[in-house]
Amino acid sequence: MFTHRIDSATYMKLLEQQDSEKLFQLIDSSREHLRQWLPWVDQNTTVEHSRQFIQRTLEQFAANNGFTAGIWYQGALAGVIGFHKIDWENRSTSLGYWLGEDYTGLGLMQKAVSKSLDYAFLELRLNRVEIRSAIGNVRSRRIPEKLGFTHEGTIRQAEKLVYGFVNHNVYGMLLEEWEEKENSKTEDDEAQG
Amino acid sequence: MFTHRIDSATYMKLLEQQDSEKLFQLIDSSREHLRQWLPWVDQNTTVEHSRQFIQRTLEQFAANNGFTAGIWYQGALAGVIGFHKIDWENRSTSLGYWLGEDYTGLGLMQKAVSKSLDYAFLELRLNRVEIRSAIGNVRSRRIPEKLGFTHEGTIRQAEKLVYGFVNHNVYGMLLEEWEEKENSKTEDDEAQG
Amino acid sequence: MFTHRIDSATYMKLLEQQDSEKLFQLIDSSREHLRQWLPWVDQNTTVEHSRQFIQRTLEQFAANNGFTAGIWYQGALAGVIGFHKIDWENRSTSLGYWLGEDYTGLGLMQKAVSKSLDYAFLELRLNRVEIRSAIGNVRSRRIPEKLGFTHEGTIRQAEKLVYGFVNHNVYGMLLEEWEEKENSKTEDDEAQG
Amino acid sequence: MFTHRIDSATYMKLLEQQDSEKLFQLIDSSREHLRQWLPWVDQNTTVEHSRQFIQRTLEQFAANNGFTAGIWYQGALAGVIGFHKIDWENRSTSLGYWLGEDYTGLGLMQKAVSKSLDYAFLELRLNRVEIRSAIGNVRSRRIPEKLGFTHEGTIRQAEKLVYGFVNHNVYGMLLEEWEEKENSKTEDDEAQG
Amino acid sequence: MFTHRIDSATYMKLLEQQDSEKLFQLIDSSREHLRQWLPWVDQNTTVEHSRQFIQRTLEQFAANNGFTAGIWYQGALAGVIGFHKIDWENRSTSLGYWLGEDYTGLGLMQKAVSKSLDYAFLELRLNRVEIRSAIGNVRSRRIPEKLGFTHEGTIRQAEKLVYGFVNHNVYGMLLEEWEEKENSKTEDDEAQG
Amino acid sequence: MFTHRIDSATYMKLLEQQDSEKLFQLIDSSREHLRQWLPWVDQNTTVEHSRQFIQRTLEQFAANNGFTAGIWYQGALAGVIGFHKIDWENRSTSLGYWLGEDYTGLGLMQKAVSKSLDYAFLELRLNRVEIRSAIGNVRSRRIPEKLGFTHEGTIRQAEKLVYGFVNHNVYGMLLEEWEEKENSKTEDDEAQG
Repeated sequence: MFTHRIDSATYMKLLEQQDSEKLFQLIDSSREHLRQWLPWVDQNTTVEHSRQFIQRTLEQFAANNGFTAGIWYQGALAGVIGFHKIDWENRSTSLGYWLGEDYTGLGLMQKAVSKSLDYAFLELRLNRVEIRSAIGNVRSRRIPEKLGFTHEGTIRQAEKLVYGFVNHNVYGMLLEEWEEKENSKTEDDEAQG
Repeated sequence: MFTHRIDSATYMKLLEQQDSEKLFQLIDSSREHLRQWLPWVDQNTTVEHSRQFIQRTLEQFAANNGFTAGIWYQGALAGVIGFHKIDWENRSTSLGYWLGEDYTGLGLMQKAVSKSLDYAFLELRLNRVEIRSAIGNVRSRRIPEKLGFTHEGTIRQAEKLVYGFVNHNVYGMLLEEWEEKENSKTEDDEAQG
Repeated sequence: MFTHRIDSATYMKLLEQQDSEKLFQLIDSSREHLRQWLPWVDQNTTVEHSRQFIQRTLEQFAANNGFTAGIWYQGALAGVIGFHKIDWENRSTSLGYWLGEDYTGLGLMQKAVSKSLDYAFLELRLNRVEIRSAIGNVRSRRIPEKLGFTHEGTIRQAEKLVYGFVNHNVYGMLLEEWEEKENSKTEDDEAQG
Repeated sequence: MFTHRIDSATYMKLLEQQDSEKLFQLIDSSREHLRQWLPWVDQNTTVEHSRQFIQRTLEQFAANNGFTAGIWYQGALAGVIGFHKIDWENRSTSLGYWLGEDYTGLGLMQKAVSKSLDYAFLELRLNRVEIRSAIGNVRSRRIPEKLGFTHEGTIRQAEKLVYGFVNHNVYGMLLEEWEEKENSKTEDDEAQG
Repeated sequence: MFTHRIDSATYMKLLEQQDSEKLFQLIDSSREHLRQWLPWVDQNTTVEHSRQFIQRTLEQFAANNGFTAGIWYQGALAGVIGFHKIDWENRSTSLGYWLGEDYTGLGLMQKAVSKSLDYAFLELRLNRVEIRSAIGNVRSRRIPEKLGFTHEGTIRQAEKLVYGFVNHNVYGMLLEEWEEKENSKTEDDEAQG
Repeated sequence: MFTHRIDSATYMKLLEQQDSEKLFQLIDSSREHLRQWLPWVDQNTTVEHSRQFIQRTLEQFAANNGFTAGIWYQGALAGVIGFHKIDWENRSTSLGYWLGEDYTGLGLMQKAVSKSLDYAFLELRLNRVEIRSAIGNVRSRRIPEKLGFTHEGTIRQAEKLVYGFVNHNVYGMLLEEWEEKENSKTEDDEAQG
């Protein structure tokens, strides 16, 4: 029921129990694509697993520990985006996301990440947002790189995937950087106006 | 972050922790107005109480037990609407709602209830929605009456308010009635088109 | 061990774990009779289900949320009676009950309900007791009707039974009504004495 | 509401929330008497403490871990008796009890213990009931001694009371002993009949 | 990782998850020997049961309710020793222990019990340590008898083992007794020194 | 009771409740020194806070989520070392540590970290250990640098301390690196032997 509009064809929506079947179908139809970079894909084998995942994301939201939402494109569930948790003491969070194979290459995720940054910095007043991508996951890495994140380091053997351990690039954006970007956008708009 | 659009000036939004102060201010500025029909107003005396209320509404949503949302009008929090819980075995729920004094008489709540019915019958596929109003609460009673609910009975001394026990009118709408209304709306639209 | 005497042949007793087998036998021997009006009968298929039910009724009693008791007649378990919960804020409760097929027609339940009203109004000082009966359940409806409850309305499609949704008659008795009845009984006794 | 009859003037009743005030008054009026042998008396200083105690006894009963009941004599609360817990694996329990100062010397507790043995051995089919009494607590020791328990040993410095550590006499009765006593009673009755 | 040295060949170590397999093997290779006096042996049939046992012992330690440790001899797990719980109000605890069949007769347990007494009386400042042994379990009884415990009584049919109920000898040692023994040891050492 | 020997003067010990006072004294006597790099120092103002901290570290150990231990030097508590948690899916952990002001400069922590690596890689078979130090915390940084960790990046504004946000250097050591180091040590020993 509750959505966050991205553009005329696209919105984010908090996943609810009645979306379990759709979420499972999306995963099930992209298994080969997804298992390359997501460690949980092979454990998600029934609709019940997707229902439990949705349950956990709602409990996460209720605990003021960040949102996890589905991305809907032209009326269909296309992917998932969310915070892994919120570190309120240090006012920081980290973002994770994935798209079903049919929905890559449309620029959906870059827009969804951008909206999520607005929420993190403007509504929650966090100070830092982090994105970690496996070095080989070029599509995923491109998003923080395009959005102006800083590459801060490479954590070796950070994650165990189906094909073995991978190194993680760490990208960070700070509140002060986001505000600067937003201000320059507004100035551009005004200059053009 | 997550909203449900009602009209160009109005939307519902799941309440989050960062809304606590606004919610408390709304209650605090309408105490005399609200305490007449809401039993909890005199127990809500600090922002912390509003924070705890929001916490419970998010846990309710996470438990698949219905939503509770703020109603925003022209950028300000105007009131609250929600399900008391969902009886999944019997596929029924009941609706509660209130508006700050400054926001009554604008037709906001009737629209919000109507949207909530769409959610209950269309997305959740419930079979019955109930509204209970104290007999003397004319403004509240008018909403189910205008929306075509059936008055099913009067529960005597159902609720203890500040001024004593009050009788409750029970109003019900069934899935089959809602679908008939929706169909006739569509037909009207088509006839007009 | 702990009982509430109804008459020389009949008493109520808090159900304990060691009653699980007897409770299951009572249900199992009246399935056709009970499933017509009780939604849970087809889910109760082993002694373990009856044990879990007893467990829940004891937790309910421990939580000051009302009792659930077995009705013993001539040394055998005949049925169950109890409060669904207690709404302490509004000082009201609702009563539910059922008898095994062999124990209907003996007037057991009317007496048990009457004793339960004494407990609700005299010991717990509640203000309202409610009974809801499916319209077609004539035997059940007769009890509040005979005991002087007021029929307050009919909730449509209130409950989903094996054969579909049924409408509920709502019956209520208030503390002031119960006290008046008790006083007139005493006066009768005195007039006769 | 639920009672276990001891004799025409006396019964046991599961303590309920509405008994909190009476329980506290009983303790408060016997402080000097009770604190000599009960370690918790000085910690019980408000009705709320008695309410919490009653809450725990109801949870104990709900957990199938033994009952704790008030003893009512001529309509007034006279004392408390109960199992400390039930060791189901070894089918044994231990009994504790106390009376307000005004109710000692009437033989109430011996009868209450006797009824509790019936429950333990007959209804719960336990194999062993234990009573522990501080050596100096002559009144308490007399009960198992009169009822035919066996003195099995003396645990040194077993309990810390207000006046220091005390030694505990351990008394035990086994199922086979209880059954023998019951049979001889019946035979006496038959011989007399 | 964390150990308590007993002698050059022997130490106690808090059991951790990674010890589950070793613990299960020790039990599994001594089943006939152990089941005679330990009621749980026949329920321990998989490594998972040993893992759950270790989990509980760690939770017990975390709750300040006493330790349970493995005894390692010449690099192999030889047995288990621990407190059953700690009664902080009365400052007492009771000790339990067992050895795999191959490790009996080496004097390991007497030393481990002695170290555990040091911990109970010196570090935790308890007032009483109890050991209970089935009368027929001569090897187990010899330990408190040699260490100077007092035999305080015999609890009849205290425990249900595979072969039926057994009587328990209760042995106790008090803080004052332990201190006296320690002092006389020191004096011996000084006299010899 | 349970310790891990570092050298003749030094050992690690799982903190227990009876260490609360000592832990609080250590913090209280080094406040100025500690608050510079530890965010929690100003919230630790009573022995009860240290008791709660110890409680959490024991629960962490019980949950198989890593140890936290005190470092004892010449019989006195000198500091604390532990894992923040264990990420079992990716087989990695991160280490944190601090020393009271009087115990710095003695090389205690480097030895304690080295022992903790042995535990992580040898007993738990983890694949990666991480240390994060604020860039300005030279003393802390020196430890991973001396022990052969790799500097993998700098997380900007990673932590909020009393004096504001600080950047974190991330250092990592992998299982394969640790094994290589251990092998070369052994070879050195053999060459010398």
